[in-house]
Amino acid sequence: MNVAHALPRLAVTAGEPAGVGAELLIRLAATPVAANFVAITDRELLARAASRCGLAIELVDDDGSDITARAPGQLRVRHAPLAVAEQPGHPDPRNAHHVLATLAEAADGCMAGRYAAIVTAPLQKSSINEAGIRFSGHTEFFAERAHADVVMMLASPELRVALATTHLPLSAVPAAITRDALERVLRIVHRELRAKFGFAQPRIGVLGLNPHAGEGGHLGREELDTIIPLLDILRGEGMALVGPLPADTAFVPSQRDRYDAVLAMYHDQALPVLKSEAFDRTVNLTLGLPFIRTSVDHGTALDLAGTGKADPSSLIAAANMALDLVRRRTVMS
Amino acid sequence: MNVAHALPRLAVTAGEPAGVGAELLIRLAATPVAANFVAITDRELLARAASRCGLAIELVDDDGSDITARAPGQLRVRHAPLAVAEQPGHPDPRNAHHVLATLAEAADGCMAGRYAAIVTAPLQKSSINEAGIRFSGHTEFFAERAHADVVMMLASPELRVALATTHLPLSAVPAAITRDALERVLRIVHRELRAKFGFAQPRIGVLGLNPHAGEGGHLGREELDTIIPLLDILRGEGMALVGPLPADTAFVPSQRDRYDAVLAMYHDQALPVLKSEAFDRTVNLTLGLPFIRTSVDHGTALDLAGTGKADPSSLIAAANMALDLVRRRTVMS
Repeated sequence: MNVAHALPRLAVTAGEPAGVGAELLIRLAATPVAANFVAITDRELLARAASRCGLAIELVDDDGSDITARAPGQLRVRHAPLAVAEQPGHPDPRNAHHVLATLAEAADGCMAGRYAAIVTAPLQKSSINEAGIRFSGHTEFFAERAHADVVMMLASPELRVALATTHLPLSAVPAAITRDALERVLRIVHRELRAKFGFAQPRIGVLGLNPHAGEGGHLGREELDTIIPLLDILRGEGMALVGPLPADTAFVPSQRDRYDAVLAMYHDQALPVLKSEAFDRTVNLTLGLPFIRTSVDHGTALDLAGTGKADPSSLIAAANMALDLVRRRTVMS
Repeated sequence: MNVAHALPRLAVTAGEPAGVGAELLIRLAATPVAANFVAITDRELLARAASRCGLAIELVDDDGSDITARAPGQLRVRHAPLAVAEQPGHPDPRNAHHVLATLAEAADGCMAGRYAAIVTAPLQKSSINEAGIRFSGHTEFFAERAHADVVMMLASPELRVALATTHLPLSAVPAAITRDALERVLRIVHRELRAKFGFAQPRIGVLGLNPHAGEGGHLGREELDTIIPLLDILRGEGMALVGPLPADTAFVPSQRDRYDAVLAMYHDQALPVLKSEAFDRTVNLTLGLPFIRTSVDHGTALDLAGTGKADPSSLIAAANMALDLVRRRTVMS
């Protein structure tokens, strides 16, 4: 006996109207992925994107209702009007408020229970800044909207990596690895691996800051002075923490089964591994929000915008990751 | 008509007598790898290692002659006596001079033309230091012996990575990336890709120091101030240099065909990629020496010493890499 379940309602934002976002969204809708996608963007932008992709798409205004099945090509729309029509490849700052309105609707809708998760296509930060708006990215926008403290995670189906620092010059990284900062990050990662990923007792592999994790102080003291004492305290609370681990061997296949996620100290310590092995399947996740948010891990590809040729693999991966998390969360609650 | 060629004479040092080196050497000799291996170590140590591995090995004192074929199990020995018999798992500083004598014979023998290349098993640096000898590793020993300026490279069959800095605390890395230091390293890498690897016009992918290669100065200025101006000068001389590249996308499969080797700015920017995808096949090479030198990329594994169970994959990969380079060099000359 099959019981028909409502498909998760996933809010999908199109990001920069002059980028590839709307086309990727059309290609996502054309897949059989079992979600009730609600595109939050301009209805006509989507129609033009479908035409550029050469795909017939059935756009339906979202009425908030549930469905139990979706045919490929069906897509609900929560209409958010553009200020000016898009010129593919040429972002127009007059559309900056439109872009932010789509993010606000997605976040507020999630917090009000209208959507189960948010999946975001790339936006053009510089165009929003040119409109005179202080804005540093999706992650910070959602964190502020939800009054949340967040951590960036990148994940493929095979590997989850959280970052203790993200977009910092390398010379600023060592000073940013304080005990307070690391504790904050580890608590968020631990809590979210339980709440969103469904790991009852998550195991976190923590990388060292220095090569060979400092080699007992010969190659840097941050492990001895900062990382190890903090890990010991948190282990005392019952967290399952492995490390500090030398980054060069932490990702060797035989080691990976020892942890459910890795905490890297900085951007280039771990993302090269993730992207070299799973470029099209790497998804950006924001941990710490009161909702699930996944994102593509690439930019607006302005050179491809309008051609219908952009590769939707990363957006599809982000949607599948969001669905997986919706299911995991449901199991927990 | 087959002409029988002499097999390359590869000097293989056993490293720390109390480690797994001699056992790995026995397992290497048991393979059909087509080289005339000359083990530089104690004859009786090898015999005991063979017994621990349960392998019958035919040890022959090296007379410097050539052979055109080698049966698995045949191994030549250049006898270098131990000071005291080994106790597996327990390095004895009294054998420190023995270890250094094997390295000296290998280096001097290469420079005199008695060996075509050196392959090294791991040694125990701390035991040599305990003997009151200043010693920081194979690489530095060979560089000093040959009065050479060297660069460390790690390579698998799929990826070659040279390092601008090696075993430095992360906080010391940015200051070490000076224009002079980078120029020195790039010239050695370029020269050696020609001389030892046989690339007529080698293409080197140069990573940035900062995430996203600095993103035009937003994430650090070293690319703008140091790296890019130097690359421009060297390109003016005809070097094929790609970059500075963001480390997180430089190793994506679609990008790798653009370069014959990658220059990483520091240890953990590239070695996690290499080891996660090719742990058993990663070889350590020293560029800049007047001879070919390859090495295992692991330690003495004192816990496994004496059991006959250590995995020889890395030493076999190092021997195969040395053979490949001997052939490439021959093609060039």
